[in-house]
Amino acid sequence: MRGVVMYTAGDVRVEEREDPKILKPTDAIIRLTATCICGSDLWPYRGVEPVDHQVMGHEYVGVVEEVGADVKNVKVGDFVVGSFVISDNTCEICRSGFQSKCVHAEFTSQIGTQAEKARIPYADGTLVPTPGRPDEDLIPSLLAASDVLGTGWFAAVAAQAGPGKTVAVVGDGAVGLMAVLAAKQLGAERIIAMSRHPERQALARFYGATDIVEERGEEGVAKIKELTNGLGAHSVVEAVGTQESFMQAVGATRGGGHLGYVGVNYDVAIPGLELFFAGIHTLGGPAPVRRFLPDLIQLIWDRTIDPGKVFDLTLPLEQAAEGYKAMDERRATKVLLTL
Amino acid sequence: MRGVVMYTAGDVRVEEREDPKILKPTDAIIRLTATCICGSDLWPYRGVEPVDHQVMGHEYVGVVEEVGADVKNVKVGDFVVGSFVISDNTCEICRSGFQSKCVHAEFTSQIGTQAEKARIPYADGTLVPTPGRPDEDLIPSLLAASDVLGTGWFAAVAAQAGPGKTVAVVGDGAVGLMAVLAAKQLGAERIIAMSRHPERQALARFYGATDIVEERGEEGVAKIKELTNGLGAHSVVEAVGTQESFMQAVGATRGGGHLGYVGVNYDVAIPGLELFFAGIHTLGGPAPVRRFLPDLIQLIWDRTIDPGKVFDLTLPLEQAAEGYKAMDERRATKVLLTL
Repeated sequence: MRGVVMYTAGDVRVEEREDPKILKPTDAIIRLTATCICGSDLWPYRGVEPVDHQVMGHEYVGVVEEVGADVKNVKVGDFVVGSFVISDNTCEICRSGFQSKCVHAEFTSQIGTQAEKARIPYADGTLVPTPGRPDEDLIPSLLAASDVLGTGWFAAVAAQAGPGKTVAVVGDGAVGLMAVLAAKQLGAERIIAMSRHPERQALARFYGATDIVEERGEEGVAKIKELTNGLGAHSVVEAVGTQESFMQAVGATRGGGHLGYVGVNYDVAIPGLELFFAGIHTLGGPAPVRRFLPDLIQLIWDRTIDPGKVFDLTLPLEQAAEGYKAMDERRATKVLLTL
Repeated sequence: MRGVVMYTAGDVRVEEREDPKILKPTDAIIRLTATCICGSDLWPYRGVEPVDHQVMGHEYVGVVEEVGADVKNVKVGDFVVGSFVISDNTCEICRSGFQSKCVHAEFTSQIGTQAEKARIPYADGTLVPTPGRPDEDLIPSLLAASDVLGTGWFAAVAAQAGPGKTVAVVGDGAVGLMAVLAAKQLGAERIIAMSRHPERQALARFYGATDIVEERGEEGVAKIKELTNGLGAHSVVEAVGTQESFMQAVGATRGGGHLGYVGVNYDVAIPGLELFFAGIHTLGGPAPVRRFLPDLIQLIWDRTIDPGKVFDLTLPLEQAAEGYKAMDERRATKVLLTL
């Protein structure tokens, strides 16, 4: 089969890889319908994270081709969406809603879903079948549920976005935009998107942002306070993962408020004293997307939400290298790869 | 009046200070019945925090001597307990239960309650009268409510201690011990106190600890995991405030679990990536003691809890210097000063 391999930073190739096989009775093999490139794939691409002939990709939708003997909830021919983290969905941690910390958790980035096929461990606990074969135009939205939508949704839930709340979203990448969508669906009263890019501002407004703040860092914090009677937002989403964005998010949260952070915090060191005196709730990390998948699939199926708009460039898998380049140069927010 | 002043690190004196006066119509003047020395008073004493002729003390119980024209909820002659943070108890932040982040918040450490009298701003929002004049033996417990009990209680609530939960408490100082008491009252199933000191272990068991762990750092984390099927505790309280203790607390919390931290985090830098992949809830900072005071006073009044046992040395105010020395040398856990 064909699949993406990152040889070194900046060197992405599509080449022949071995077809995946059932290794355990809880595995399933899926043939991908679509996959995509994640903001976090840019970390190794840019040399922030070491990389050496690594298979790439962790987002996926597709059709089940084969299942192991113990798989019961999905069957050959099902169209499925899966989380970017493998989970058994039965352990104590999964049952508490934190499938991304499942005792059997494994990142699908190790599997490399930017490929024609993929082996999904714990298929029953990881994959969710759609109500039927989806219309073509729903594919991007279902694919978004696999990570960016699920992650943005988790961030908004972690920030306790809801009725009567003012939500500030730090980061206008795909996850930030999905957090705006989630905050809207969760009933937030006011949604402030922090963005400097006109096209992303427009998309943020499409998804439900009521206000745009262009300032960053301390100026950004001051602006959020100005918009909230000096108190700060009830709910803040951090969807970037740099020192500046994290502290901007901490500063924008009111005392006793909630910060949900989903940007991967490479090289971030949080000053303990500053966090202490902020007096805020925080919850973050790899999102337990599996918790939300059934509901998200239904919202997409019913055409209540349209997360697929977050893909602004579609390329065939063979042109993955160009997709990485476009995202690295910020010519694209998120790239969908077709198969 | 007589009051404590810290001239420089390690130099504590009791000297004549000016009597406090009503400055605003929302003020009250109280005559202290008892006050005490806090673990956080050791920061300047040890030179970690700069100090220059600073009035000291932020915990207090006493009798109202005078009230400003706008004070309605407390009257002259009332016996009162107050939080170590001033709050109006009416602003939006206070109404959400975070009185320590009140828009009028002020630390009573600036007022210096290690003294015969103190001026308490926003008396209506800060002070809570007891049901009557307390018996002598209840004074230490009521005094504990002013900070250490209220802070330990908040930490346990922040960690979501409750029925069915395993709670680990990092720190065997007064606040850690009070968190053990709180976890017990909140119905926790198992309470693990992390302590190396035999007398403090005994007190932890008195307050409800079911297990003691002597190991620290990574070994301490390993021990907590061993006691919890490899998962970590549902609820962890951090009541020390060093880099090691904070990361020990993070490591001891299971995925999706709750960490309540109340140790003041001087010089702590939290590695963002480690916190991210822990996937835990956190809530910390100066405790909103005022939220809990009415309930805590009632529990003490009914003799349901006995937090006063945390004081293991009682001295007259005039011997405050010896009290600081005893705590600094860990000869005492917490020193009560009588007036």
